[in-house]
Amino acid sequence: MSSVWNHNISVQIFGESHGPAIGVVMDNIPAGEYIDIDKLVEFMARRAPKKNKTSTQRRESDMPQILSGFLNNKTTGTPLCAFINNTDTHSQDYQNISRLARPGHADYTGALRYSGFNDVRGGGHFSGRLTAPLCFAGAVAGQILEKRGIYTGAHILEVHGVKDDSIDPISVTRDKIVKMRGNEFPVINEAKGKKMIAEIEKAASFGDSVGGVVECVSINVPAGIGSPMFDGIENSIAQLIFGIPAVKGLEFGVGFNSAKMLGSENNDEFYVNEVGHVVTRTNNHGGILGGITSGMPITIRVAFKPTPSISKPQNTVDLSNMTNSTLEIKGRHDPCVVPRAVPVVEAAVNLAILSHMLDYPNF
Amino acid sequence: MSSVWNHNISVQIFGESHGPAIGVVMDNIPAGEYIDIDKLVEFMARRAPKKNKTSTQRRESDMPQILSGFLNNKTTGTPLCAFINNTDTHSQDYQNISRLARPGHADYTGALRYSGFNDVRGGGHFSGRLTAPLCFAGAVAGQILEKRGIYTGAHILEVHGVKDDSIDPISVTRDKIVKMRGNEFPVINEAKGKKMIAEIEKAASFGDSVGGVVECVSINVPAGIGSPMFDGIENSIAQLIFGIPAVKGLEFGVGFNSAKMLGSENNDEFYVNEVGHVVTRTNNHGGILGGITSGMPITIRVAFKPTPSISKPQNTVDLSNMTNSTLEIKGRHDPCVVPRAVPVVEAAVNLAILSHMLDYPNF
Amino acid sequence: MSSVWNHNISVQIFGESHGPAIGVVMDNIPAGEYIDIDKLVEFMARRAPKKNKTSTQRRESDMPQILSGFLNNKTTGTPLCAFINNTDTHSQDYQNISRLARPGHADYTGALRYSGFNDVRGGGHFSGRLTAPLCFAGAVAGQILEKRGIYTGAHILEVHGVKDDSIDPISVTRDKIVKMRGNEFPVINEAKGKKMIAEIEKAASFGDSVGGVVECVSINVPAGIGSPMFDGIENSIAQLIFGIPAVKGLEFGVGFNSAKMLGSENNDEFYVNEVGHVVTRTNNHGGILGGITSGMPITIRVAFKPTPSISKPQNTVDLSNMTNSTLEIKGRHDPCVVPRAVPVVEAAVNLAILSHMLDYPNF
Amino acid sequence: MSSVWNHNISVQIFGESHGPAIGVVMDNIPAGEYIDIDKLVEFMARRAPKKNKTSTQRRESDMPQILSGFLNNKTTGTPLCAFINNTDTHSQDYQNISRLARPGHADYTGALRYSGFNDVRGGGHFSGRLTAPLCFAGAVAGQILEKRGIYTGAHILEVHGVKDDSIDPISVTRDKIVKMRGNEFPVINEAKGKKMIAEIEKAASFGDSVGGVVECVSINVPAGIGSPMFDGIENSIAQLIFGIPAVKGLEFGVGFNSAKMLGSENNDEFYVNEVGHVVTRTNNHGGILGGITSGMPITIRVAFKPTPSISKPQNTVDLSNMTNSTLEIKGRHDPCVVPRAVPVVEAAVNLAILSHMLDYPNF
Repeated sequence: MSSVWNHNISVQIFGESHGPAIGVVMDNIPAGEYIDIDKLVEFMARRAPKKNKTSTQRRESDMPQILSGFLNNKTTGTPLCAFINNTDTHSQDYQNISRLARPGHADYTGALRYSGFNDVRGGGHFSGRLTAPLCFAGAVAGQILEKRGIYTGAHILEVHGVKDDSIDPISVTRDKIVKMRGNEFPVINEAKGKKMIAEIEKAASFGDSVGGVVECVSINVPAGIGSPMFDGIENSIAQLIFGIPAVKGLEFGVGFNSAKMLGSENNDEFYVNEVGHVVTRTNNHGGILGGITSGMPITIRVAFKPTPSISKPQNTVDLSNMTNSTLEIKGRHDPCVVPRAVPVVEAAVNLAILSHMLDYPNF
Repeated sequence: MSSVWNHNISVQIFGESHGPAIGVVMDNIPAGEYIDIDKLVEFMARRAPKKNKTSTQRRESDMPQILSGFLNNKTTGTPLCAFINNTDTHSQDYQNISRLARPGHADYTGALRYSGFNDVRGGGHFSGRLTAPLCFAGAVAGQILEKRGIYTGAHILEVHGVKDDSIDPISVTRDKIVKMRGNEFPVINEAKGKKMIAEIEKAASFGDSVGGVVECVSINVPAGIGSPMFDGIENSIAQLIFGIPAVKGLEFGVGFNSAKMLGSENNDEFYVNEVGHVVTRTNNHGGILGGITSGMPITIRVAFKPTPSISKPQNTVDLSNMTNSTLEIKGRHDPCVVPRAVPVVEAAVNLAILSHMLDYPNF
Repeated sequence: MSSVWNHNISVQIFGESHGPAIGVVMDNIPAGEYIDIDKLVEFMARRAPKKNKTSTQRRESDMPQILSGFLNNKTTGTPLCAFINNTDTHSQDYQNISRLARPGHADYTGALRYSGFNDVRGGGHFSGRLTAPLCFAGAVAGQILEKRGIYTGAHILEVHGVKDDSIDPISVTRDKIVKMRGNEFPVINEAKGKKMIAEIEKAASFGDSVGGVVECVSINVPAGIGSPMFDGIENSIAQLIFGIPAVKGLEFGVGFNSAKMLGSENNDEFYVNEVGHVVTRTNNHGGILGGITSGMPITIRVAFKPTPSISKPQNTVDLSNMTNSTLEIKGRHDPCVVPRAVPVVEAAVNLAILSHMLDYPNF
Repeated sequence: MSSVWNHNISVQIFGESHGPAIGVVMDNIPAGEYIDIDKLVEFMARRAPKKNKTSTQRRESDMPQILSGFLNNKTTGTPLCAFINNTDTHSQDYQNISRLARPGHADYTGALRYSGFNDVRGGGHFSGRLTAPLCFAGAVAGQILEKRGIYTGAHILEVHGVKDDSIDPISVTRDKIVKMRGNEFPVINEAKGKKMIAEIEKAASFGDSVGGVVECVSINVPAGIGSPMFDGIENSIAQLIFGIPAVKGLEFGVGFNSAKMLGSENNDEFYVNEVGHVVTRTNNHGGILGGITSGMPITIRVAFKPTPSISKPQNTVDLSNMTNSTLEIKGRHDPCVVPRAVPVVEAAVNLAILSHMLDYPNF
């Protein structure tokens, strides 16, 4: 199924960028979970366009309306449906897009996949706007997890080569996560954040865009959650993360750096800590061994390519007559998707963890 | 489900390293596909331990026996089951492992997940040996795809910092793929391969191990295969790849490098080539846009951590009494899993592509 | 998942009887299918309350609003979401229901399943009203199938012991199906229909209700569609049909009567007909052998229990204090769900057939 | 997938009647469950051909061999694979079958579905013999359930019109279930059983066969298990039951008889019993309301058609040249599948209940 994710819980995303609405249905969410709508809206606001020059000037009202599965501020256990109206849709900005395949976009592949019948305005169902309902779902999952002490937070690790400090995968705490998430421009080191903003604005000034990396951590996930092979925490996170537009890479723990290490460096030694828990001295494994949680913080990094919609002229193909042509993209686009992608990555991780937590006997 | 992958086709892996047998059931494989068993065994032999010092000295006979779904050298369309007997199992080598959690292994997490009832000898169901039935399945898928002109091949891109040449994602051909796969030590640049072997042997001589990266390419996959969001080619490849033990990272196209690029650098311009096909001038996107194939070669890179089983003494926890202890791992282990992982990565990619190809009208 | 059905296509139902809206998301529907909205609304109107005494007096506006997946009157191939607002909700009629478990209803079992957090007004997510979005989905599927010549129609076979004529499983034609579906009270034999109406009105006059049977046929489904074991046409139809409230039984072909037959009576002999097709002389098998279509009409019968909501006083348990009590159900209820269930059965069958047809090479 | 059933647990059946072996892989079975192999073999022996004239004379050794997932007589939690060798295969008996489509069999539909590549000897993957691995899986599930006090048992309710006494859906006890299952010819009323045997032998003497009905009950399933719509206990049981060859109908509780009842007759009044449990005075609902268990016994009835393989000459089509022809089936066939189907129905019900029980907090 294109836009359903099923794993203990089900998340069905629907909608197109310039259709009447976008939304999500979540199924098999536990009953009786209190959801703070203000906090949920706050979570989604982190994905909304920023009021500065680092993001699109499209003004989206991302206020979700809940149609079902929610009563007296609690989940009912039956399917929870929410939708978000599309209001600020300047379809005329996209008029020449339907003919000219935007490089780096799914215009060409989508036209083949759907025989030309899909809604191409603003990217249609391929639009980054579809991450709004994913954030709704992830925010619900996150609130359910936080009541069990499980906190997930992400930050911008890199933008166009400028690097933030990394999350410490051993000492990270709930307070550090909450603080990191609270930043308008979510980085750990503010000075690095300013350099990143400068990179983004510089690229924007040339009609160009930049890529980056989001780093995410989850703490207090109990040890023993997940499964080997195709149904581990990594598989679930991966399936969700690669559902986010513009993602090109994913790593757990030290990730690709492990390729440069010796076993004696990479192996995380176990020991019994002062409160009698089995923990590891280092956390190169990123909290997952054999697809199953070790109880250590779960750490991932996600690579995002530069926004493909740039205003610089580009060569491409006119799909209406299959001839070479040139494209100048108008409209309002993020010069860098990474700042807005931070809560989206958290959302994906929340959903993966919640779905596996439902197997946990003490949930 | 822990060890089932379902997506148009179903692949159910079973078995433990030191049980009677390991195997696989494939379901929904098209009927009437001729499978050359010699070629299949040859594919699986690429995963078998090497006769040199880069791999374990365990002698495995990976000859698969087919129980069902195969008649007159053709698939019947009904479930195809194959198993491989475990013969060379020195269980005594693993005696102290059941108590002492091997760092970097799933001993601890597996014990929690299965309440201590799982078979821990040789890693049990978590063993790398379980990639043999995955290779069987991938070899079947690969033969079905090759008859449609779709070729997949991988090589060792990196071992402990030593890098092979990269696959050219534009000019790669069937002949280059076949040649690359045919090497005893599968690299493109033989000189680099020798340096890698030296790295592996050096680590082995100290009782240590090294990690690395496998790079894989698939050519001639038709454009328009896959779906957006959670059911794209990337999601399927990711779910399978993270089912391979020791994998810590996965990237498509330029992957994490895209984080350092401008949009104008990263975007792959479309043009109509001399035979009237829409192609891209560069292939940073790795053959997939919006979860759907573009017709360009599909390129991925997979990071493998160093083999966690090293003979150097390591601190760990004795799970039988939850006290700190020290472990010296005996037995025969690969000082580097990467050379043997090459066909396993191909197998995973073959399965993902075949499953999506079944939606293709002209399959 | 409680309310998702996944099988090549995905159907996710959401909503509660007295919440803001009910609806459905369909995923993996083929792109470019023209849907006649007038015909769709007409289909759904067959499920709406009748203007006579055989059904509830609740006035529902079942006009669906489409949020996504539909453009220029054609499916786009991306998720198709439609919802129906709940307007005529007299919640006060249901006030004492939340405490007193209605016999034959899911009040008690639902309270356990959802720990008392589910919306119980009007049956909540268990309400028969949730068959409206199922009808929407089935109407979409039906229009896609009818363009391929596949027609499905049902009628009331039995109400409280009064039997209509049966569909002839050999000679049934498209015209007969269309005529049967067109009846205000969908029976083949109008005289029998009048007797049924009398039965329903009689039961209603005593504050009681009656059960019945719906018979359904599908013609022109190509031979060779489906699979053995757990993924046959029967399994899919069964999974959907038992998703309809009040269904207690399902049979294919001669069904339970086959238990009284000899093999020589029950076996349907094959022959090559005048146009060279392999057909059977009788159709006791109901168009399915080994889970796979034979090309003969597919015939099923579905048993519905009497509406459990009756106005007669009933003994039951007060769930608020777990004591025995007495209940008098107020409100507007169908004295017989069978007439309104006719298109619902068709909808379920349409969805099952469409999902299997997507595997058909010539679809 | 044709022969995989996935629902919390996964059951993958493989094999053909005359191939090397048939078998099953079960995944997600809880770890640490003791399985008594003697009892398991005893269960499977109930499906084996009888030593009297009511069944085929084929001598099958149904002794399962376990390949994985089982250690020290306990489940390990990882995939449990078992296979059964095919030994007594008289392929020559089936030689003319490959050309002549047996009426009532899947020879014709299977040939279309698998383009003629499926193994047709003895029915291949469509053979009733494939219910042996289903019984293995059901026996494992049954032992796990019985340790929680949940007992399932079935009997022959009807053979060719001769009816056994029905199970009392209120007073049925564990002892009655065990006794019923223990009978060589599993009926409640022995005198009726003798009449049934006479019916079967009479049909056999004419080279004919007869159909029948199996009735099954499960007790002590906790209330509150299951879900509404497409994921209820009924949907799961239905999907599995229609995976058994020759099944033509399924009903729950009073089933089709509810169509003849008034609501006031059919509704089961709730009351609080002497030990403080909510129960119903009657059990027309068969233990399931809204897809969720009520705590009352779960009762189903399953209709089986007469064995299609009869030795009487039959008209049919020669698929090799698509001409009308005549067939005389040789070989050894059950004149009635119902006696051997009794444990198969229990197996299917056990699997459905176990899969839903895994959601139960106190499992």
